Amino acid sequence: MISLSLIGIGTGNPEHVTLAAVRALNEADLILLPRKGEAKSDLIDLRRLLCRDLLEASSRTRVVEFDLPCRDARADYLGAVDDWHDAIAEVWADLMATHLPEGGRVGMLIWGDPSLYDSSLRIAERLGDKGQALEIRVEPGITSLQALTAAHCIPLNALAEPVLITTGRRLRERGWPSDAESVAVMLDSGGAFQALPQEGLTVWWGAYLGMDKQCLIDGPLVDVAATILERRAALRERHGWIMDVYLLRRM
Amino acid sequence: MISLSLIGIGTGNPEHVTLAAVRALNEADLILLPRKGEAKSDLIDLRRLLCRDLLEASSRTRVVEFDLPCRDARADYLGAVDDWHDAIAEVWADLMATHLPEGGRVGMLIWGDPSLYDSSLRIAERLGDKGQALEIRVEPGITSLQALTAAHCIPLNALAEPVLITTGRRLRERGWPSDAESVAVMLDSGGAFQALPQEGLTVWWGAYLGMDKQCLIDGPLVDVAATILERRAALRERHGWIMDVYLLRRM
Repeated sequence: MISLSLIGIGTGNPEHVTLAAVRALNEADLILLPRKGEAKSDLIDLRRLLCRDLLEASSRTRVVEFDLPCRDARADYLGAVDDWHDAIAEVWADLMATHLPEGGRVGMLIWGDPSLYDSSLRIAERLGDKGQALEIRVEPGITSLQALTAAHCIPLNALAEPVLITTGRRLRERGWPSDAESVAVMLDSGGAFQALPQEGLTVWWGAYLGMDKQCLIDGPLVDVAATILERRAALRERHGWIMDVYLLRRM
Repeated sequence: MISLSLIGIGTGNPEHVTLAAVRALNEADLILLPRKGEAKSDLIDLRRLLCRDLLEASSRTRVVEFDLPCRDARADYLGAVDDWHDAIAEVWADLMATHLPEGGRVGMLIWGDPSLYDSSLRIAERLGDKGQALEIRVEPGITSLQALTAAHCIPLNALAEPVLITTGRRLRERGWPSDAESVAVMLDSGGAFQALPQEGLTVWWGAYLGMDKQCLIDGPLVDVAATILERRAALRERHGWIMDVYLLRRM
């Protein structure tokens, strides 16, 4: 029997970790840390740092790193994701069989919160489908959207109004939604807001939220759209990778 | 000069507090704890418990309780809320003038996250408008939606799909949105989902999330809607108050 804890660790600020996450880390027999290639080595570095800082001296937790399989860049996006999740589930199963042949408690550090644009829950389900006896626990974590609104000191929703959380891909395809005046955009490969009429929209943008290199820009979209695109390209060039999110509000 | 920290404290599970929130609590000169009347005394009790557990012995933080003004129940909802926020800002200003006449650091414990369906940021803005020299900081906290998805071990969004976060009031008025197949409902005074055609919807419901008395129900909405309404009424009767949220997904 494997007890798998998906532990939300927030967005790069080690202080955004919850007390429950710290406890879950220390109670794990095994923590699996994925390596995602050179360009994103900051991310594995941050996970290593969290383990070093938060695992107590008395903890018997073993930390094992592994190389995450690469996702196929083919056009069939959902098909490629499906194959990728299968490949990751295989790697997890092998690691658990190798390091915990008698079963035990496994912890995975998840950026942000395991509930929001993260696939660990879906991958864990595949482990169960393959016949692994599995109990899943989730420790919530601070998302990049929460780090964004905290950094800008703004609410996510307008008073008593809804907010749509969506992806860059979807915003490009469907345009501004009919159901919300506030739209939070995640997983944007860059500038999906260019697909919108910019008049009347305010944007609050943030990259590397919670980290030392955090960068914030806000203002009327017509005034700051070009600045965001330039800054994003320059930061990506400098650091080798970028993660950014933004909130748009029609007001 | 007042430095005001709005500190997200999660949903009632003291372990959902972040390390940054613990630090902010201990760095405050003054913590203001609102009392919301007898029926919701659990909530002030939980805030007192957090202060007792998380303030270190060496901390010089003073904790001061105050009675929150009541909101007018009149039909003009937004007008009533506007007056209420003004009244609360007055009370905050008086407390700060009384307890920190030379200025200092004030902490407020906010259920969930200060960004989501919470008015503290809007009330704080009024303090600034009244001429108070003010610096605002926000510490993000785990929301009831995150406690809900963690407790049910489910993702908030379907793979690469958007999610709409909305209110019970709005769901009743507008029905199912056109932009999302996943809808998270907060601030529902009870059973707004009854306004929807129930066929094809799955619901994950939770009340008192994170607390010892947490209650979860999930299933096809056609099968569990009546159970949720009955359980909600019984729990509200037993505890004198209820807070619940739910996720609906069309699948």
